[in-house]
Amino acid sequence: MIKPPPPPPLLDSAMDSHPNTEALDAPLHAIGFQIDELTPHKVTGRLHVTAKACQPFKVLHGGVSALIAEALASMGAHIASGWKRVAGLQLSINHLRRADLGDHVFAEATPIHAGNTIQVWEVRLWKIDSESKSLVSSARVTLLTNLPVPNNAKDAATTLKKYAKL
Amino acid sequence: MIKPPPPPPLLDSAMDSHPNTEALDAPLHAIGFQIDELTPHKVTGRLHVTAKACQPFKVLHGGVSALIAEALASMGAHIASGWKRVAGLQLSINHLRRADLGDHVFAEATPIHAGNTIQVWEVRLWKIDSESKSLVSSARVTLLTNLPVPNNAKDAATTLKKYAKL
Amino acid sequence: MIKPPPPPPLLDSAMDSHPNTEALDAPLHAIGFQIDELTPHKVTGRLHVTAKACQPFKVLHGGVSALIAEALASMGAHIASGWKRVAGLQLSINHLRRADLGDHVFAEATPIHAGNTIQVWEVRLWKIDSESKSLVSSARVTLLTNLPVPNNAKDAATTLKKYAKL
Amino acid sequence: MIKPPPPPPLLDSAMDSHPNTEALDAPLHAIGFQIDELTPHKVTGRLHVTAKACQPFKVLHGGVSALIAEALASMGAHIASGWKRVAGLQLSINHLRRADLGDHVFAEATPIHAGNTIQVWEVRLWKIDSESKSLVSSARVTLLTNLPVPNNAKDAATTLKKYAKL
Repeated sequence: MIKPPPPPPLLDSAMDSHPNTEALDAPLHAIGFQIDELTPHKVTGRLHVTAKACQPFKVLHGGVSALIAEALASMGAHIASGWKRVAGLQLSINHLRRADLGDHVFAEATPIHAGNTIQVWEVRLWKIDSESKSLVSSARVTLLTNLPVPNNAKDAATTLKKYAKL
Repeated sequence: MIKPPPPPPLLDSAMDSHPNTEALDAPLHAIGFQIDELTPHKVTGRLHVTAKACQPFKVLHGGVSALIAEALASMGAHIASGWKRVAGLQLSINHLRRADLGDHVFAEATPIHAGNTIQVWEVRLWKIDSESKSLVSSARVTLLTNLPVPNNAKDAATTLKKYAKL
Repeated sequence: MIKPPPPPPLLDSAMDSHPNTEALDAPLHAIGFQIDELTPHKVTGRLHVTAKACQPFKVLHGGVSALIAEALASMGAHIASGWKRVAGLQLSINHLRRADLGDHVFAEATPIHAGNTIQVWEVRLWKIDSESKSLVSSARVTLLTNLPVPNNAKDAATTLKKYAKL
Repeated sequence: MIKPPPPPPLLDSAMDSHPNTEALDAPLHAIGFQIDELTPHKVTGRLHVTAKACQPFKVLHGGVSALIAEALASMGAHIASGWKRVAGLQLSINHLRRADLGDHVFAEATPIHAGNTIQVWEVRLWKIDSESKSLVSSARVTLLTNLPVPNNAKDAATTLKKYAKL
């Protein structure tokens, strides 16, 4: 029912040009996620579902989907706020279809509201194979976006600024 | 306002008697979480907040809180359902206070509804130090709990059965 | 950011051809809502914001937005399920912009997942005036849709069947 | 599992001493709800489930439960904020058990977080009869609470101040 995004471009050989997920978001890196696009209007990435992202039934862990949603929305809101400190207030996610061990999952975060104080982002995950695309989950992340950056985190945006396209 | 749980018991030297988080839930282990209790009425555990559970502002990643909530509720619902396959349908979480790098966080999941088809669990995270306890987040996880166990996952409950107290 | 729907058609003089909101959903009628379309793929309607839909600050009551979301999703899921009994499990709604007393609000519900057991519907409310459209709220409603119809409610679908376009 | 509140006191004959629900919240009054307590720590009330609060299957409309949750949380947050303007940001509700036409439902809202900028309230609905109490729904309402009161709504708090116990 929801039109899926175009399939992601193949990774080219210039891996250095891709955002460094490990430096940008450690937990996201720990479960094997790779960030692709970083802009104020869209944040995307992909996950090859391995054991470190699965629950014991060998399907994508619902908590990993939630982690991806919170992470992508936070980065997008941080960029869109003009580098203010952002804090997630609320996350709601519906798990719609399972993704299995070995599946390729594509994630896309877009703002549905970008106010001065509050932003709300939608994050959708799709399973993608050569023949079809289907929606795995759909999340809403509500963020407070007008917080001052504390002195001990003045450089928190540095890595994000390096990779974001404004 | 919510009465916090008693502080967790100190880890004794008999580490072998504790649930094996790595075998029970790989992503939960990846971010450093340790499961303590596993019963149909309560699932608990703890997290020492290290860099692998943080976002760039050096505070506990909201997506990690969501991952903990989904994981604990899923294990509890699996036990409470009599070892049927359970599937998370929806997760809602409110992030209330931040936990910082180095903090000790305690998590407790309890059922607020345990029907034959649907279970709803509440999962709360507290920061605990020697002087005070404060609520970090509060989540609700809705699960479908009457699914047949597929043939290729007949042993998914084995590890959980080993550690759960019924 | 979200493309708004086309403005609703003007009410023609043949009012008898419009769904009877009072017979279909009493609380929805009580706050002044008028149902327009009833199909398995889309349910729409409109609200002229009067005092009976407002909170004391003279803006559309957030609980009224939630009521509209639950009502439209339930009717749509009931139709899409082939007239099984449906039960709302969970509703999540983000209030994005206020609508004031006197505003015209348009509501649209569409399924984002229509499984045999679970359906998830998205419901959006827009303010519409001659010059612009803006998103007032966005909701997700999760429903259980395979319930048997009890004997004492065998005629619950009668009114809906009369007005729905399949 | 959740300890229910004590049964509500019987309505005494001095009806004038009860909060005037119609003046405090028009939509809440429209579906038949009666507010009992109004304090910064707790807001309660009751509903005798009549046709105007039901969906066509003659059970309490899930959207009415959501309306009650948003209304009670908003009033409580308004009082607790020191009469600032409050705006609901997000509502999440789990429908746990149905309440039937004729049932008596009791509602209780309590804050789980009361910060300067954000408050989060929990709102629970119980069915109460002479022999038992059971949880009908459980909701979380997230509110922004530091908004200036606009000039054209300077008297919005007047009625609430009249009935609230501080």
